[in-house]
Amino acid sequence: MPYLRDCWYLAAWDHEVPAEGMLSRRILGEPVLFYRDDKGQLTALHDRCPHRFAPLSRGRIEDGVVYCGYHGLGFAANGKCVANPHGRIVNSLSVRSYPVKEGYYGVWIWMGDPQLANDTELPDLDFFKEVAESAYSNGYLHGDANYLLFVDNICDLTHADYLHPNTLGGGSYTRTRSKIIERERGLAIQWHCMNEVPQPIMRINGLTADRADSWTEIEWTAPSIMTIRNGSVPAGSPRSSGKNFLVAHIMTPETETTTHYFFAATRDFARDDEELNARIAANRVAIFSSEDQPMIEAQQERMEDQEFWSLNPVLLPSDEGAVRVRRKLGAMIQAEAKTATPQAS
Amino acid sequence: MPYLRDCWYLAAWDHEVPAEGMLSRRILGEPVLFYRDDKGQLTALHDRCPHRFAPLSRGRIEDGVVYCGYHGLGFAANGKCVANPHGRIVNSLSVRSYPVKEGYYGVWIWMGDPQLANDTELPDLDFFKEVAESAYSNGYLHGDANYLLFVDNICDLTHADYLHPNTLGGGSYTRTRSKIIERERGLAIQWHCMNEVPQPIMRINGLTADRADSWTEIEWTAPSIMTIRNGSVPAGSPRSSGKNFLVAHIMTPETETTTHYFFAATRDFARDDEELNARIAANRVAIFSSEDQPMIEAQQERMEDQEFWSLNPVLLPSDEGAVRVRRKLGAMIQAEAKTATPQAS
Amino acid sequence: MPYLRDCWYLAAWDHEVPAEGMLSRRILGEPVLFYRDDKGQLTALHDRCPHRFAPLSRGRIEDGVVYCGYHGLGFAANGKCVANPHGRIVNSLSVRSYPVKEGYYGVWIWMGDPQLANDTELPDLDFFKEVAESAYSNGYLHGDANYLLFVDNICDLTHADYLHPNTLGGGSYTRTRSKIIERERGLAIQWHCMNEVPQPIMRINGLTADRADSWTEIEWTAPSIMTIRNGSVPAGSPRSSGKNFLVAHIMTPETETTTHYFFAATRDFARDDEELNARIAANRVAIFSSEDQPMIEAQQERMEDQEFWSLNPVLLPSDEGAVRVRRKLGAMIQAEAKTATPQAS
Repeated sequence: MPYLRDCWYLAAWDHEVPAEGMLSRRILGEPVLFYRDDKGQLTALHDRCPHRFAPLSRGRIEDGVVYCGYHGLGFAANGKCVANPHGRIVNSLSVRSYPVKEGYYGVWIWMGDPQLANDTELPDLDFFKEVAESAYSNGYLHGDANYLLFVDNICDLTHADYLHPNTLGGGSYTRTRSKIIERERGLAIQWHCMNEVPQPIMRINGLTADRADSWTEIEWTAPSIMTIRNGSVPAGSPRSSGKNFLVAHIMTPETETTTHYFFAATRDFARDDEELNARIAANRVAIFSSEDQPMIEAQQERMEDQEFWSLNPVLLPSDEGAVRVRRKLGAMIQAEAKTATPQAS
Repeated sequence: MPYLRDCWYLAAWDHEVPAEGMLSRRILGEPVLFYRDDKGQLTALHDRCPHRFAPLSRGRIEDGVVYCGYHGLGFAANGKCVANPHGRIVNSLSVRSYPVKEGYYGVWIWMGDPQLANDTELPDLDFFKEVAESAYSNGYLHGDANYLLFVDNICDLTHADYLHPNTLGGGSYTRTRSKIIERERGLAIQWHCMNEVPQPIMRINGLTADRADSWTEIEWTAPSIMTIRNGSVPAGSPRSSGKNFLVAHIMTPETETTTHYFFAATRDFARDDEELNARIAANRVAIFSSEDQPMIEAQQERMEDQEFWSLNPVLLPSDEGAVRVRRKLGAMIQAEAKTATPQAS
Repeated sequence: MPYLRDCWYLAAWDHEVPAEGMLSRRILGEPVLFYRDDKGQLTALHDRCPHRFAPLSRGRIEDGVVYCGYHGLGFAANGKCVANPHGRIVNSLSVRSYPVKEGYYGVWIWMGDPQLANDTELPDLDFFKEVAESAYSNGYLHGDANYLLFVDNICDLTHADYLHPNTLGGGSYTRTRSKIIERERGLAIQWHCMNEVPQPIMRINGLTADRADSWTEIEWTAPSIMTIRNGSVPAGSPRSSGKNFLVAHIMTPETETTTHYFFAATRDFARDDEELNARIAANRVAIFSSEDQPMIEAQQERMEDQEFWSLNPVLLPSDEGAVRVRRKLGAMIQAEAKTATPQAS
């Protein structure tokens, strides 16, 4: 399936592109070089010299210009050649420069029509905007599966009852029907588990009541940005008396079958509890990498590079969110293909 | 080349599918889950959930039902869904269930039309039927070559004279023309080496005469079940005065270029000699894995995934058995394709 | 791109094919067995038995005949079967025998029409003809890139200024325009850097003058044999007062994307200085394997198995040599294809 291109993809956490230094990372199959100039200004260029196809990331940065390490051509942040020790600078001496933006502790890249980038805001992750370090953590995992399998995983939270029975699961998601709400460039998928057996994780987090009301409200923004607001109270108590965990799962395609998986988390309570913060981050990695990731990579392996729908999956009511996500994204990709101006790559 | 499907393939030795536990193994390219219920009854299911394609082998077994570890669907031995915590059980919620049979210390699977399985006996390996443990051994090796290259290897025993000169060879196979006898679903390939220089292995096994009469009688049953009855006597002595080694080589395709290679061996003498038994088993593995396997895998590598006949092999008289095996199997596969009802996979 | 076939390729250094023993090496994608008979006479055969496709290199040599280790067929140096223990020797029992020649400490193979081999001399490497051991060294590296990327690398020496700034570079190549001279089956590419800042390597080699005249004269002979004569004198001094380093870089395609890279070096001074000889050889390997090789392999990776011209490289004046090499070689390959008689392989 082609990718949605006219949108912001999270390419890296900001600390992954240090003040001096470079990051070379494949995004939607294309090798991209990320670096900063002396003022910290971020640049993303196609990581392939137009002369002899050496990776520019094997070169060096000076005054915001990247010099190819093979024959010394220099390219500025706009991709234009600004140094050719061998002769005239002709127009064809340029590399694709990708619009980039920083925000929410991340480096974002625009892989589509650059004309459209300026007028487009980053997807709303405002709950990460001004968070104390003691209440925030992020992370990165590399996954060997198509990015939409990782998106599906979050859309259908009933998986927690079977894949994470001793932490996030317990059965309440399965007994609950999610509510889907249309958004402009996405969907909300809301799981409200009312008067339910508390999930083991709620016990760990201090809930003592026999029954709980809980909410897990997912916002999916195309193509693959997902946030979750999650909390619980003793059954019947007002939601406003509860605490909220705020988590983002952002999946950026590296290739058709590999994914950059970014996590971030904060909360609206105990914001100065660094010990709790560290524990939450460690648990998230432990659960995801030992339970979700192996299952999703095994799915991909069983699909043997065939397209999801071509395998005729049998759908369950709990797939409603995932199916609507895939359909909405598919329609957006089709619409984009119709209006797109061809991109140089 | 397509596979013969309406036949029993050895999938595992029985100890490989323990009472509690599962075995996931690819057979003819398809991932298959083998497990037993509480009564030890064996089941083989397509190892891929029809919902989201997770391997069922990442789930758990309870009361003979396998529960998918991702979203909790449960499938019974017949492949029908018997537990759907998310809604109604619809007909499409099923996985392919393969007929299985146990016998000759092995787990056998039927990859073709299940209607035909019941009426078909396992291939005759009766000489393994009731054997003392002290006179029996079996083993498994994974081979990186097409299964028919392993079959060819046994069909043409002249290879022993060159590949195993210090044990099974010695020259007598080359000086002998094999006799081929048509069987209903196979061929007999008989090597009777009369008044010949004894093979080194016969010396090791105690033969002292200068000349020997020996017999190595192969029964090939389509597609790839081979037994060998082998023995020797001093030249001119009655065959009934000799001892017999009884060996099976059973090659089950994993993929087009990889093979599950099963061995089993017994004998009609010294049946309570456990030390001899262990020595025979160890020698078999040592010879095969250091001499046959590297040669056959090198053959496969040189063939570069091209079809055997397309490479125009130059055939020798000693290839007669192998060629008739390949032709007979080819004809059976063609005949099967003409009458086959399409299988769900 | 097809290969030039009617020419001598360096297949190995002579010590790589020992008196007793064999070397199996893929040349232009074909597996070739190299061995010597009792008199040291060299043979090159297709390393695949025509019977069952076993590599002949898994067999043994006796009296100049290679015996297949699987079923004992024997092939003489001309590729004809001379031993068939299983029956008559038919004409089809033969393997392709490649013309071979020894010279310049190397083993050379002819992959094209054998009729043309006899009348063709080895490419001229006469400066290696009678060299004291103390003034000669050779070496071999395996490279993961198309052989023409390695050829391009030598053609455009401006790369030294950027890839080897502290040794071979310094800027003088970039400020110099190479002179290209047509040869019968090749090109000369001459870099004369006059009145220039000395390269760091010249300082290391004892030059003390502020400015230097230097010469680096490359002879490329199709398809991929390159020699370099290189030296320097204080600016304005006669060239005859200088010393010459004499180096060969010979790239033989293993496959489309891998290369056998052979080096050899000598000089016209300090020929009995073994310590210097060892230092030169060590430096060459150190520089090439840590600077050239990683860059060229990264180029290949970025080209993703696409053909060089199809990627529309932007050419610089310094590419003139490399471009003329590729065009001349392309024309030779086309001309050869038109007149070629088909080869059995």
